[in-house]
Amino acid sequence: MRAGLLYSAGKDSTLAALLLEDFYDVVLVTASFGVVDPEPAREAAAALGFPHETVDVDPEVARDAVSRMYDDGYPRNGIQQVHEHALERVAAAEWTDDLDAVADGTRRDDRVPTVDRPLAQRVEDRFDVDYLAPLSGIGRGAIDDMVADTLVVETGPSAEVPKADYEVELRTLLREAHGDEAVAEVFPDHTQSRVRGRRDRHEA
Amino acid sequence: MRAGLLYSAGKDSTLAALLLEDFYDVVLVTASFGVVDPEPAREAAAALGFPHETVDVDPEVARDAVSRMYDDGYPRNGIQQVHEHALERVAAAEWTDDLDAVADGTRRDDRVPTVDRPLAQRVEDRFDVDYLAPLSGIGRGAIDDMVADTLVVETGPSAEVPKADYEVELRTLLREAHGDEAVAEVFPDHTQSRVRGRRDRHEA
Repeated sequence: MRAGLLYSAGKDSTLAALLLEDFYDVVLVTASFGVVDPEPAREAAAALGFPHETVDVDPEVARDAVSRMYDDGYPRNGIQQVHEHALERVAAAEWTDDLDAVADGTRRDDRVPTVDRPLAQRVEDRFDVDYLAPLSGIGRGAIDDMVADTLVVETGPSAEVPKADYEVELRTLLREAHGDEAVAEVFPDHTQSRVRGRRDRHEA
Repeated sequence: MRAGLLYSAGKDSTLAALLLEDFYDVVLVTASFGVVDPEPAREAAAALGFPHETVDVDPEVARDAVSRMYDDGYPRNGIQQVHEHALERVAAAEWTDDLDAVADGTRRDDRVPTVDRPLAQRVEDRFDVDYLAPLSGIGRGAIDDMVADTLVVETGPSAEVPKADYEVELRTLLREAHGDEAVAEVFPDHTQSRVRGRRDRHEA
């Protein structure tokens, strides 16, 4: 069986891939508006031993999401909108004809993005794939422990850790449209993680 | 890290164990009111290569649940009550001093039992363990596919497949208290599964 997993090089989507790899041939898929370089995700995928693909996301959806985040003053609804669109793009991509499932790294304790059961079933029915969210029944503490045991991770402030997720792209678009102040207001500083590879179990 | 997983020998709890085994030393734990024999679960655990334990569940909770199911005419609330109690008993058992996590096989599409985020966090805070529900972001179709690829399963009507879960015990208690008719009304016939071992990947 083959699963396409929405991939950012962050620890959540990487751990999701590790949970599924005994059951699926996992392809890591980075969604891009064409604003940032998907290279960090491609490098992480190679270090982990997974194939990697990119899908283009509709720039109109990105612009809408940026307006919404600016109006809201917080990123939640905008990110949710883009995540749903990105999932659908993975399910609908041409090379995904033989995908049995689409997957992502959404967690139990995430406030955003969330994929509730009706949305999951809508994606499943519309694209005739299963939707898998292997971290959605696992809390933050357990995820951190599982990551520490299995992955080599680089962490730092969002601005300094190169990642290839659409959050980085949305920040870039927000900066272009409304300046640095808007970015600081909508995305208060938080730590990002970028996976560099698997941890040798014997060194843990 | 060590996880105690509530175990019935059914395919859901077995698949949950397989999803976690790369990250945790998984102990399969069967909750029992002392009504049925935990032997089927012990046999399945041995065939799968996991250690197995039992925990006793308060018979008073079972009696309450049976009354509730009889009054309701359906099993949902009674089973939910017993599941929550069983999870807490696993977390609190004496031999579980060194458990990092408790886990179960609840699925996204289950109507019962469900462990929502507040309940999960209550268990985590009260017993200082993580709660893991690795199937809670995975739908029925994907679970069936993953099971078919990895496990040898015996299926049949509930009454004929020997299992060691508290649903079997609750049916027995209901029969003792209210007769066969009550069992037929509360638990309409449904198919049960019992895992016999791992499938050799090369034969799939």
